[in-house]
Amino acid sequence: MIRAALDLLSQSGLSGLGINQVVEASAAPRGSLYHFFPGGKLELAAAALEEAARFEGNWFRGVFQTSEPIASKVQLLFTDAANNFESTGFAKGCPVAATALDLASDSQSLRPVCRAIFFSWEDIIAKGLDEVPEAERLQVAELILATLEGALILARAEATKEPLLRAGGTLGEMIGRKYPAMS
Amino acid sequence: MIRAALDLLSQSGLSGLGINQVVEASAAPRGSLYHFFPGGKLELAAAALEEAARFEGNWFRGVFQTSEPIASKVQLLFTDAANNFESTGFAKGCPVAATALDLASDSQSLRPVCRAIFFSWEDIIAKGLDEVPEAERLQVAELILATLEGALILARAEATKEPLLRAGGTLGEMIGRKYPAMS
Repeated sequence: MIRAALDLLSQSGLSGLGINQVVEASAAPRGSLYHFFPGGKLELAAAALEEAARFEGNWFRGVFQTSEPIASKVQLLFTDAANNFESTGFAKGCPVAATALDLASDSQSLRPVCRAIFFSWEDIIAKGLDEVPEAERLQVAELILATLEGALILARAEATKEPLLRAGGTLGEMIGRKYPAMS
Repeated sequence: MIRAALDLLSQSGLSGLGINQVVEASAAPRGSLYHFFPGGKLELAAAALEEAARFEGNWFRGVFQTSEPIASKVQLLFTDAANNFESTGFAKGCPVAATALDLASDSQSLRPVCRAIFFSWEDIIAKGLDEVPEAERLQVAELILATLEGALILARAEATKEPLLRAGGTLGEMIGRKYPAMS
């Protein structure tokens, strides 16, 4: 059920996450959904976002814990994202971003969930920015995450992976220029 | 009706754009909505996005046609966006981004609309990047737009304008460092 919910969130945000669709996609009985998620759609969405947080967090960790120079890490992140986006048929973006942009008065409970996930990702990225002075790491990590999320939007609108490749190339080069490898 | 539709799209994407809500918010009779937009919700959404395209395009033009150095233009763009976002009570993002992330199989007709709007904005930004060699302008413009859209997502999740101010400051500084003012 969580997997089905995550797929729906990644494709069309909260608008796409209907209880009926989850039941249909997961082939789980409707009763079990309300058994595990008595809070219904919003509780299921929160669980799905936490799952995405772990999964994508591990991905960020894998990229930023390498010993590559900072420009290569940034470019690898965007290349990975581009290939992953392509493998979904250009149909699935970041479920956290899609949820954040769909937040309405009846879904405010998901705002702190989205916020905490973005913070945790920025923290993981910041820890791998060896060339950046510690006081600037979180700010650079935030820029990388913002650009990744924005490039995913442009890629979604174009149905190509090119915006991710281009933005990652340009951003990586600029960050590498500002923070050259320590020797 | 277009104004009401745009408000709803900016707040919660396609999921928030219901015909009932538009009728309620605009106080227009339901019949007139189908008179002007026989295609219903998707046709109304397209018209609202075109309205946003013009409005935000004029804003980009105003920022990038000044004679400020490139770093200042970028920072002004993000400061403007931050203040505007704050004035909506941190509730309204970019309607085109929200729509792009909500695209599903029944709303594919809006994809080329989103794509064309993003291209038109990149074109406007690129024209104001005087310090950047012409062959690189579109790529830098795309990076600026991607970062703006992504920072708006982070700001939405935090319900503060800080991510916009920080991302704009960092990105502007990096772009200015790579493309110093011509003398």
